[in-house]
Amino acid sequence: MELLPGYTHVTKAAERIAGIVRKTPLLTSAILDEITGARVFLKPENLQITGSFKFRGAYNALCQLNDKQRKCGVVACSSGNHAQGIGEAARLLGISATIVMPTDAPQIKSERVKRSGARIVTYDRSHEDRDKIAGRLCEESGAVFIHPYNNSHVIAGQGTVACEIVEQLSDIDCGLNRLLVCTGGGGLTAGIALVIPHHFPKAIIHSVEPEGFDDYSRSLEANKRVGNQQLTGSVCDAILTEKPGKLSFEINRNILAEGLAVSDEDVLNAVKFAFHELKLVVEPGGAVALAALLNSNKSWAGETIVCIISGGNIDSEVMARALCG
Amino acid sequence: MELLPGYTHVTKAAERIAGIVRKTPLLTSAILDEITGARVFLKPENLQITGSFKFRGAYNALCQLNDKQRKCGVVACSSGNHAQGIGEAARLLGISATIVMPTDAPQIKSERVKRSGARIVTYDRSHEDRDKIAGRLCEESGAVFIHPYNNSHVIAGQGTVACEIVEQLSDIDCGLNRLLVCTGGGGLTAGIALVIPHHFPKAIIHSVEPEGFDDYSRSLEANKRVGNQQLTGSVCDAILTEKPGKLSFEINRNILAEGLAVSDEDVLNAVKFAFHELKLVVEPGGAVALAALLNSNKSWAGETIVCIISGGNIDSEVMARALCG
Repeated sequence: MELLPGYTHVTKAAERIAGIVRKTPLLTSAILDEITGARVFLKPENLQITGSFKFRGAYNALCQLNDKQRKCGVVACSSGNHAQGIGEAARLLGISATIVMPTDAPQIKSERVKRSGARIVTYDRSHEDRDKIAGRLCEESGAVFIHPYNNSHVIAGQGTVACEIVEQLSDIDCGLNRLLVCTGGGGLTAGIALVIPHHFPKAIIHSVEPEGFDDYSRSLEANKRVGNQQLTGSVCDAILTEKPGKLSFEINRNILAEGLAVSDEDVLNAVKFAFHELKLVVEPGGAVALAALLNSNKSWAGETIVCIISGGNIDSEVMARALCG
Repeated sequence: MELLPGYTHVTKAAERIAGIVRKTPLLTSAILDEITGARVFLKPENLQITGSFKFRGAYNALCQLNDKQRKCGVVACSSGNHAQGIGEAARLLGISATIVMPTDAPQIKSERVKRSGARIVTYDRSHEDRDKIAGRLCEESGAVFIHPYNNSHVIAGQGTVACEIVEQLSDIDCGLNRLLVCTGGGGLTAGIALVIPHHFPKAIIHSVEPEGFDDYSRSLEANKRVGNQQLTGSVCDAILTEKPGKLSFEINRNILAEGLAVSDEDVLNAVKFAFHELKLVVEPGGAVALAALLNSNKSWAGETIVCIISGGNIDSEVMARALCG
């Protein structure tokens, strides 16, 4: 197994990516405080470069490649936010990137990847195996495969969001009782879990997933990695993963509190709330933590809570459904 | 005429509102740099409390009222962003606020004002004069009338956005060649014009307005205040004003470069661009400066440009028109 990253890997990543990765603000909302009875801070990673936190991990991984590796380039499998993160990080570093995407990926997403100059290799979901294609591409070219979450540099990069949160709370002399994080493979969650307990040892961290795709929640309960029955059927396309990543689960299993799950209806309501109250464009997968917060029914009243908004790459049609549907 | 505010009025306002008003980030966008050939920074005041910059001026005006004035409360005329700014500032300061709104104001806007605890007095646009109603309310109660832009405290408060811009550019050792600002009555523009030349004496400041409602542009050209022919018929409802405010024009006439104007189509394209590329919800009136920037056709290539995004209070229907129409 790959090296399990620790706290110092994240702080070193934060130094490494400073000035490149955007420091997103920590936002408050009077109406959210009123609804929850808590003091809430939102960390809007939809405002990150490429519209999601994924750029943090991608840049941290790519900027550590040696000269030989840089010449051979990188390969990633993703139809969404990881693809955009890798594409843009590669562009900035002058590294060639190849993204393996399904033929039926939304046009808007493949356009974004192309815009960064990355090469796209398509595959047919019905009868081709993307991991095999990626493996072959790496063998042929010597390129390095960058996994979206089962990669210690990626996890350390995602964790830099927590370094910012710690600094931003410290600037206003504020503690932390609870943190909610949108969870797919668990890379972002693990990165955060490496940092928060170091500064706020009593803070409770919850993973939040879509109902019916709560593999992390069930894995934490079972204390072993268990998978989802299916991988389609939720509006939260960005965070539907087969099962928790090995590395991320090794970190998260000892740190996270119970996992939370929210319905698609709750998620679309959270997307609508973000639009009207926060003036933020949030994608469903990036709104699950906010949905859990809006559903909390004052059970966390009096606490200081940080809620991660993890991405904003939403199609017009899905936004229309959230606003008017 | 009321006291004409100067640079130190703005810096004092900035001290006064620190910790209450939100310091909005200064955002970059690789695609915007590519389109313009410039180094662009966006100041998203749609992320300000109440969803627009208006909260800055409202809070700065209200927090300077004396005890007797605070007891008598404040009155404002507005169906939009100024109403929300006054309502929320009054709530935070424990001052009673009365907002004179037209009977046909959008429900969402009157709800926001009510939420802050402000009292709403409605009037019929067809045969009632809102200024007279406001005047009577002030006479009856001793309340202070807060004009949306012809008020030196309001102008000084709006100018605090420029103090942040100066600080944020200075943090990254960056100069400024040009600044674009959404302009209605000119309060925000004047506040900015009091600050920017003090730090960047060669920077060019443009007011931006909707085509057909470019009273500021024509007034700057004529070197006297001239009005608009009509006050309806643009999607940019938030910045349609009869003519430039007296105070704001006194400041702006000596500082601004030529005014720019953009079509409704350009504005809706800018709203769509902000949605997809910046993940920001921007209202048409708050997107005129961005529209001018997107239309600049590389004529400002090589420059460092700041573009103000002034508000985000947009109805779902208008956003749907921008995204799909």
